[in-house]
Amino acid sequence: MAPALSPLAPSNFPEMPEIAGVRMATASAGIRYKGRADVLLALFDKGTTAAGVFTRSKCPSAAVDWCRDKIKAGKARALVVNSGNANAFTGRTGREATRYTAASAAKAANCKPGEVLLPSTGVIGEPLDARAFDRVMDDLVAAAKPGGFEAAARAIMTTDTFPKGATAAAKLGDATVTICGIAKGAGMIAPDMATLLSFVFTDAPIAAPALQALLAKGVLDSFNAVTIDGDTSTSDTLLAFATGAAAARGAPAISRAADPRLKGFARALDAVLKSLAEQIARDGEGARKLVEVIVEGAASARSARRIAMSIANSPLVKTAIAGEDANWGRVVMAVGKAGEPADRDRLSIWFNGIRVAHKGMRDPDYDEAAVSGEMKKQVIELKVRLGIGQGRDRVLTCDLTRDYVAINGDYRS
Amino acid sequence: MAPALSPLAPSNFPEMPEIAGVRMATASAGIRYKGRADVLLALFDKGTTAAGVFTRSKCPSAAVDWCRDKIKAGKARALVVNSGNANAFTGRTGREATRYTAASAAKAANCKPGEVLLPSTGVIGEPLDARAFDRVMDDLVAAAKPGGFEAAARAIMTTDTFPKGATAAAKLGDATVTICGIAKGAGMIAPDMATLLSFVFTDAPIAAPALQALLAKGVLDSFNAVTIDGDTSTSDTLLAFATGAAAARGAPAISRAADPRLKGFARALDAVLKSLAEQIARDGEGARKLVEVIVEGAASARSARRIAMSIANSPLVKTAIAGEDANWGRVVMAVGKAGEPADRDRLSIWFNGIRVAHKGMRDPDYDEAAVSGEMKKQVIELKVRLGIGQGRDRVLTCDLTRDYVAINGDYRS
Repeated sequence: MAPALSPLAPSNFPEMPEIAGVRMATASAGIRYKGRADVLLALFDKGTTAAGVFTRSKCPSAAVDWCRDKIKAGKARALVVNSGNANAFTGRTGREATRYTAASAAKAANCKPGEVLLPSTGVIGEPLDARAFDRVMDDLVAAAKPGGFEAAARAIMTTDTFPKGATAAAKLGDATVTICGIAKGAGMIAPDMATLLSFVFTDAPIAAPALQALLAKGVLDSFNAVTIDGDTSTSDTLLAFATGAAAARGAPAISRAADPRLKGFARALDAVLKSLAEQIARDGEGARKLVEVIVEGAASARSARRIAMSIANSPLVKTAIAGEDANWGRVVMAVGKAGEPADRDRLSIWFNGIRVAHKGMRDPDYDEAAVSGEMKKQVIELKVRLGIGQGRDRVLTCDLTRDYVAINGDYRS
Repeated sequence: MAPALSPLAPSNFPEMPEIAGVRMATASAGIRYKGRADVLLALFDKGTTAAGVFTRSKCPSAAVDWCRDKIKAGKARALVVNSGNANAFTGRTGREATRYTAASAAKAANCKPGEVLLPSTGVIGEPLDARAFDRVMDDLVAAAKPGGFEAAARAIMTTDTFPKGATAAAKLGDATVTICGIAKGAGMIAPDMATLLSFVFTDAPIAAPALQALLAKGVLDSFNAVTIDGDTSTSDTLLAFATGAAAARGAPAISRAADPRLKGFARALDAVLKSLAEQIARDGEGARKLVEVIVEGAASARSARRIAMSIANSPLVKTAIAGEDANWGRVVMAVGKAGEPADRDRLSIWFNGIRVAHKGMRDPDYDEAAVSGEMKKQVIELKVRLGIGQGRDRVLTCDLTRDYVAINGDYRS
């Protein structure tokens, strides 16, 4: 029943250093899965700042409602993630479950309920029995220790085929600070499941508003530039935690996102977010090819993003790539339906650097055999030049295979 | 290689009467298909008015450009449809091909090139050798005779699995007027193919602006309310032709769409358009279930349409229906991602009349076995009540099966 490892999976989980001020533990609460960890607890030292970015769904989960509200205070002492039940569309009982869980975690971790963040993933529409956490909470707090990112990444998986992690270091003043991030899969991974979750931890001393600004900016070209099936989850949650522990090693405390000393950190954060986002595309349901869609020469960057997303979400473009066909006519179709400024007769299209269409028609010089060879590869770069303006953007997706339909549709048969 | 007949196909092509003033013939020009008709010619008596609705794609085919320009004059003497080559993304040569074909048809039919409409479907990105029509044009004109709608509907098919036709009669003054329409499939039916084409013929004497207004209105809840995969074709063309022949039998000439005498005709036209649109949903690529999505209680009708389309285009909703799963959580997801006003905790959802979710959570009273039985049926009515306002809408789609992916992605293997 468990899907096979994605052929696009990285060869190994990266080596990830400890983050001073963060301790973690995982446990099996048996909410949905048996014989594997399904709860992650992270504890943060006093003074840890927090920031978050959430799904734009108009129907978010109770867990998202809780996190969005609590993150406003800009601080956190505990993170409790469960991968068995998304606590989505559970009405009043869902709100009660978040309150109960936060109270239980706060008691065990000796903090306030409002300092506990509770992202959830898993089954939707099933009431969450929050008492399930009671059985494991004290043990989790007792077991929490530095490091353990791979175990944490595994505990938040639903039917992701591999754990996702990324790390980077940056200079902040004269000190080196570290960023570690984990994530779980995009798209609806298995029956009744939703959710993209990602958590990023750093020892850098950064005030919450600055961390929030960096995160909101960083998400634009990472998680917001990935699509598997165009179906926005009701549970998407990205949280960042900055313990500030590096201040003891001389890292300056940063209060504003515009502080020039943040430049290296922002770059490192972006790298972590982009790596995690790419890993999510590589673990898209049924994916056999990673597709990078590049749009150039659009009326604006925003227009380029919309056109790139129209291409990346087109079932016909994605099935053509699954069929290893450089079907540029479908790309023109997807450009045309985006509704953005475009001129058919100025369009050029490349697959893996080979121009197949030029000025709105088939490139007379292109070598069919060479393109066919490129289309057999695991990574496909699909580039469109519009010839309208200077707008440019890039998004990641995967191909649409029969396995996607099987994973999402055939499980009852 | 030809797909099997859709399980949702009607049992037979309807009996369709002749339309006075319209003569038709089909031929095999061998542009793509061998051993079957691939060109349709329709000739119209002098005085025939014409109206058209086209794809909103920003990258339309040369054929669409031609038709959109010529329809402005509001009249037509000939319709030449080829189902072998869409004449899309063929640059300057595409424009030359339309001019050449119109001149050739005008000469044979003894009319002006601007009175010839040229919708095309079929391969895209391949130059169209318009001289292929020379071989058959004179024969087509000579063979044209009243009736023959089934042959016409077959000639415009690409890999549709059944020909699509609908007819209705209406009173206009004291005379009975007739409407006959044909259509070909939505979605990309086969490798490199696009297009929805539909042609509607009537003997009613209706001025072009009035016909245009009726058509533009009629399309909103018929063709514009159908989606197979959310991928808008670059060739979509709906044309209506009114010969006015019924004037000889006493039908009054109508010049304004608001004329109250048009009421019955407008209703009959809507019925024909809706029937054709439903047939297109029933022949969606790989379709095994026809899905009617009804949204009630939205902030406005426009908001209801957007939410209905978000549901009807969601790969996860469509794969769930293919899997015969009343997965209402995915419906909530699709409501949430539409970006329209919605309140999770007021949502109710029904599958074939059985309420499965109420006030944003699982309906405690619903009978799982009864719903499972309904989900096995060929026609699924998915109703969502938002509880926000009075907006209501309805769209048609089909399920997303592995056959869709196979049809669109596997043809090279």
